[in-house]
Amino acid sequence: MVLNDNDKKILVDSIRSVNDFPKHGIVFKDITTLLNNKVAFKLLMNHLEDRYKSYNLDYVAGIDSRGFIFGAALADRLGVGFVPVRKKGKLPTTTVCEKYELEYGFDEVEIHLDAFNNEKNVNVLLIDDIIVSGGTANAAATLIKKLDVNLVEVCFLMNIQILDGAKKLREIAPVYSVLEI
Amino acid sequence: MVLNDNDKKILVDSIRSVNDFPKHGIVFKDITTLLNNKVAFKLLMNHLEDRYKSYNLDYVAGIDSRGFIFGAALADRLGVGFVPVRKKGKLPTTTVCEKYELEYGFDEVEIHLDAFNNEKNVNVLLIDDIIVSGGTANAAATLIKKLDVNLVEVCFLMNIQILDGAKKLREIAPVYSVLEI
Repeated sequence: MVLNDNDKKILVDSIRSVNDFPKHGIVFKDITTLLNNKVAFKLLMNHLEDRYKSYNLDYVAGIDSRGFIFGAALADRLGVGFVPVRKKGKLPTTTVCEKYELEYGFDEVEIHLDAFNNEKNVNVLLIDDIIVSGGTANAAATLIKKLDVNLVEVCFLMNIQILDGAKKLREIAPVYSVLEI
Repeated sequence: MVLNDNDKKILVDSIRSVNDFPKHGIVFKDITTLLNNKVAFKLLMNHLEDRYKSYNLDYVAGIDSRGFIFGAALADRLGVGFVPVRKKGKLPTTTVCEKYELEYGFDEVEIHLDAFNNEKNVNVLLIDDIIVSGGTANAAATLIKKLDVNLVEVCFLMNIQILDGAKKLREIAPVYSVLEI
């Protein structure tokens, strides 16, 4: 179903803002208070299921590690496979990697080369909780496209528009965010 | 439903064994090949839902980060809240911590002090993918009990019996493993 203003208010109100985490000046959006609120969690999952049931998805991929939470639950609801995009060093067999820039230095995400069972042109949704700068999501989306599958959309619970991270990501794939902050 | 031998074979066959990861001599059980197999993933989730639907759970807690995958999907199926038990430094507000021993040194897991919305005596299931030594699961179970809730069971996809990690954990809470290896 489409979320009405009241639904969105339930979701927004369930997310806790924590000042100065992980460092001074940052307002951290804490989604644990959405997850442990069964009304808000179900509302979100109902919305995601309803949106994506017509997308003919074959896989949902989630970004390490909060993307695992929404991604696995959504894959389960849709009856499709789940694929983790992980931080470097966690996946045991052959992977493809993608480096991305942090404020200071670089980080890397990776995905198994056979993550989609070597199927080509299957429909994949990528999901994470929050987009700010979009660095991790860009790297994850780039990785998925390297495996010759259709990245049909990148989905977030929340787009924090201050850095407009979604803009660059839209050059790679369509972007949807449940909430715009 | 109870898993019959054929069901268990589907699950076991879907888990990939990778030699010498993360280091020489270790045979790593790779569950990504279960997750991206929609038949195996659904079979597992059907079994978990069926087992736990009569437990009157209020929350499912999952251990960072593969426990998030099964835990969130199960919480969603049961219509209850999900609580992440995280590695140190990831949770933004007041936490309780528990240290545990690694082969060399120590690690810590933590949970928000209000993870269960300050409710007491509610029913909590803790879930992770695999138990070997049980160090992380013991620490996570100890944490949960500190919050005065009922830890009704600790559930794993797989118990690798070589170190008998489940034995010590059974002193804290009942333990269930879908597969015994």
